[in-house]
Amino acid sequence: MDIRPPGSASGWRRTAYSVIFEADTPAGRTFDIAVLVAIVLSVVAVMLESVQSINLRYGTALRAIEWFFTGVFLLEYIARLVVVRRPLAYAFSLLGIIDFMAIVPTLATLIFAGSRYLLVIRTLRLLRVFRIFKLGRFMGEGEFIVTALKASRFKIMVFLTAVLTLVTVVGTLLYVVEGGNNGFTSIPKSIYWAVVTVTTVGYGDISPVTVLGQTLASILMILGYAIIAVPTGIVSAQMAGSRVSAPAFKQVVCHVCQATDHRPDAEYCWHCGEKL
Amino acid sequence: MDIRPPGSASGWRRTAYSVIFEADTPAGRTFDIAVLVAIVLSVVAVMLESVQSINLRYGTALRAIEWFFTGVFLLEYIARLVVVRRPLAYAFSLLGIIDFMAIVPTLATLIFAGSRYLLVIRTLRLLRVFRIFKLGRFMGEGEFIVTALKASRFKIMVFLTAVLTLVTVVGTLLYVVEGGNNGFTSIPKSIYWAVVTVTTVGYGDISPVTVLGQTLASILMILGYAIIAVPTGIVSAQMAGSRVSAPAFKQVVCHVCQATDHRPDAEYCWHCGEKL
Amino acid sequence: MDIRPPGSASGWRRTAYSVIFEADTPAGRTFDIAVLVAIVLSVVAVMLESVQSINLRYGTALRAIEWFFTGVFLLEYIARLVVVRRPLAYAFSLLGIIDFMAIVPTLATLIFAGSRYLLVIRTLRLLRVFRIFKLGRFMGEGEFIVTALKASRFKIMVFLTAVLTLVTVVGTLLYVVEGGNNGFTSIPKSIYWAVVTVTTVGYGDISPVTVLGQTLASILMILGYAIIAVPTGIVSAQMAGSRVSAPAFKQVVCHVCQATDHRPDAEYCWHCGEKL
Amino acid sequence: MDIRPPGSASGWRRTAYSVIFEADTPAGRTFDIAVLVAIVLSVVAVMLESVQSINLRYGTALRAIEWFFTGVFLLEYIARLVVVRRPLAYAFSLLGIIDFMAIVPTLATLIFAGSRYLLVIRTLRLLRVFRIFKLGRFMGEGEFIVTALKASRFKIMVFLTAVLTLVTVVGTLLYVVEGGNNGFTSIPKSIYWAVVTVTTVGYGDISPVTVLGQTLASILMILGYAIIAVPTGIVSAQMAGSRVSAPAFKQVVCHVCQATDHRPDAEYCWHCGEKL
Repeated sequence: MDIRPPGSASGWRRTAYSVIFEADTPAGRTFDIAVLVAIVLSVVAVMLESVQSINLRYGTALRAIEWFFTGVFLLEYIARLVVVRRPLAYAFSLLGIIDFMAIVPTLATLIFAGSRYLLVIRTLRLLRVFRIFKLGRFMGEGEFIVTALKASRFKIMVFLTAVLTLVTVVGTLLYVVEGGNNGFTSIPKSIYWAVVTVTTVGYGDISPVTVLGQTLASILMILGYAIIAVPTGIVSAQMAGSRVSAPAFKQVVCHVCQATDHRPDAEYCWHCGEKL
Repeated sequence: MDIRPPGSASGWRRTAYSVIFEADTPAGRTFDIAVLVAIVLSVVAVMLESVQSINLRYGTALRAIEWFFTGVFLLEYIARLVVVRRPLAYAFSLLGIIDFMAIVPTLATLIFAGSRYLLVIRTLRLLRVFRIFKLGRFMGEGEFIVTALKASRFKIMVFLTAVLTLVTVVGTLLYVVEGGNNGFTSIPKSIYWAVVTVTTVGYGDISPVTVLGQTLASILMILGYAIIAVPTGIVSAQMAGSRVSAPAFKQVVCHVCQATDHRPDAEYCWHCGEKL
Repeated sequence: MDIRPPGSASGWRRTAYSVIFEADTPAGRTFDIAVLVAIVLSVVAVMLESVQSINLRYGTALRAIEWFFTGVFLLEYIARLVVVRRPLAYAFSLLGIIDFMAIVPTLATLIFAGSRYLLVIRTLRLLRVFRIFKLGRFMGEGEFIVTALKASRFKIMVFLTAVLTLVTVVGTLLYVVEGGNNGFTSIPKSIYWAVVTVTTVGYGDISPVTVLGQTLASILMILGYAIIAVPTGIVSAQMAGSRVSAPAFKQVVCHVCQATDHRPDAEYCWHCGEKL
Repeated sequence: MDIRPPGSASGWRRTAYSVIFEADTPAGRTFDIAVLVAIVLSVVAVMLESVQSINLRYGTALRAIEWFFTGVFLLEYIARLVVVRRPLAYAFSLLGIIDFMAIVPTLATLIFAGSRYLLVIRTLRLLRVFRIFKLGRFMGEGEFIVTALKASRFKIMVFLTAVLTLVTVVGTLLYVVEGGNNGFTSIPKSIYWAVVTVTTVGYGDISPVTVLGQTLASILMILGYAIIAVPTGIVSAQMAGSRVSAPAFKQVVCHVCQATDHRPDAEYCWHCGEKL
């Protein structure tokens, strides 16, 4: 996001910016956590409202809560716009659009009722939960995972292409084998079945009945069972690699013999015995 | 637990303590195993009693066994209270509470019948099974697993947060897409479906029927299939790391400073610079 | 494939060859991508045609598209035959046969209608998608996966033999235990159930009902749950191994014999003994 | 097995022994493969016989095949007894008992018909398939897997104890929560459900219906999804460890400086430059 702090702005804007957008001051951290709690509560309210029996009894209260949080998020959105140096850049950034979309649906229900379904967008605000990982210890750990996944992304894409091809070929095959019966009513549906099978989910809403179909399905299952090893292997190897490389040795070169890779707590060179 | 051995207590209490609470004497080990067998047998009795057909035929015998074991556990509980130096500390420790709760339900049935369901608490006593791992070889192995999981706990929490967010967003989406039909009757139920799917359990009690729903479900499945690689990778890397560390060093002790863990090809001690 | 470039052929054939069969010129890359897009579109058309409701409305259009792509693939096939030095070698290579089979089914529908099902073969052309991985970055990554799998193939075969034996033994056992009822109507069907179970797919179309059957199934599930660790471990270890091997060596080339891959702390070339 | 070769036996017995029990001569290998083929064919015959429709048409032929193979196995069993130095030791070894049990059922059908179900034991002979891994390349690979699993057996036992305890506690909990309805009719059945869930098999024959039940089930699923990382991590780490240690370096010590861990193809010592 190209939203930089307001630089030489007036004092209160700078303070407000650090409270609203940053998380390294106590006030900023408190603000972030307050927003997170508000998001979780509003999402819980939306969820409960979708439950028939709860809606019948507490519907009015839940709708009041919805309007309350919409107000809170509206204020928060305005505050963000005011405080940021380049409001447009924020407004059109991904987080900015999600923040805006979280307000619209409730307002739109005034005009037409069906728009309430758009509240689903509000759950996207949950993505802000990951901001909490900027607080303290979690940061490094989250970054570790993201780095490992990023480093593996090409391998994972190759793997996914292989899986998608496999699923298309086997799905089409099963459509032909089962002859369009037993739930395999079309090729896309058969591919859906193949995905359900190769990922070992196995709902059982569609399952082969013919002998040939069950044989092919068995092969697909064992394949799926075996190839889960591939993404796991990729990520494990990546993580093991980055883990081992970094903290294993002291980043110091002996000034006498130039030996490296000393123990992290070494006081003398392992090669020539010189004091490090 | 802050239950220390009774220090300068009288001889018999000291002996009883080591028998009941410790496992490094033959008597202590025998006591531990006897308690474990009693727990397993009483849990099996509770299980069998819940089976209608068995209850009809052997109900009286099973209830007699239940009372017998309740008596045994009561005696054991009293013995623990008598023998320990600070009975209150034990009584309010986690294991102490579980030990107490294992006795109460059977007694409570005298007053009102429904309380028999509380016998479920007795299965918690099964946790004492892990005491057996204090015996011999298992200790190190169990500790190895626990250590690896502890070291990975922040990474696993980040991972779980990501999974929970994914499940909430996709669950809500499917609720909207399937329009409240086909089992997706509320957002919490749709999230339950998303958990069932992303973990590749796939009961099939709820499964999408619309084309868009099945497409989204397929994406979720492949995601779930791929991201299982993350926790596996984390734990594998952690375990591989701690495993490798052990034999990666020279099995030699410096004769001057007693330092160990030298590089496999070290010629001088990393700690004092002495020739190895 | 034993299809070599046409060597000292006339200029246009050489150019055409590099466009059609190779991917390292801009024209060649464009041709490859165009073919891929055509394959994906034709496969999508075949898929959509299999959907009853779409077929009723857009059937004529889809059949026109099918004929159009059949024409395109026919032209492509002829071009490949003309351009290659040894047409027969190409025609009887795996890719050549698949390319040919992708054209036949549509033509065959002129003679008898049922042959449309053969269009399933066209999905096999999707395998050409992997050609895209010859472009740029992906190549190495794809090769990394293939190499790791190849190196593990014997271990994976041993593993698969063990799984197949397990599945046969447990399947037969369940057939006997369930007495041919509850879906376990024959041994092959019971083995199918065992595959569904051990791979953790779990459709639920067949599931044990007797107490002994459910107990055996539980053991099989826990076994399946535990032994997934084996292929994963094999591939992880393989990948971690080949990954580690790369940076484990000194990035220095011997100035005498050009040998690389010296130990990180080597002082002399392992190949010619020269001081590094 | 304490079956030693017949030592100073007469020549033909020695030859017969090496043919029947060993696999390092061409004749021995041929015999082994012939036995394997006979086992697979007889198991296939048993399987096909269990299929109603096939049994009706080819029942007589299949029963003839069954008798033929029973005869073959009887001859093989007698040959083994004759050839081995200590027949009783073989007869009471595991493989000997399985070999014997593979013959009995067919003979027993002469007396009472139900005993045909005992043919399930014949599938156990499939275990002999693993003998094939003694041939050539597979041996080392199979041993690699077995060694890794053996080295991890204590960790896997700790893990399995944890899973069994979890499954017992959660199963009992769900029995209480669902109140004995929705398939959770007894504690053992609920534990069966918990196993089906935690292993991510998920048949769907039993699934929670109450809100609390579905919440607990979701937690169990995510736990099951996360803890699959544990056995995988154990085996991966074990395999990665043993892989790296063994074949990475040349097993040669420099006769000048005693340096070890040379590249597998090193000709000169990396430490002192001496010819190895």
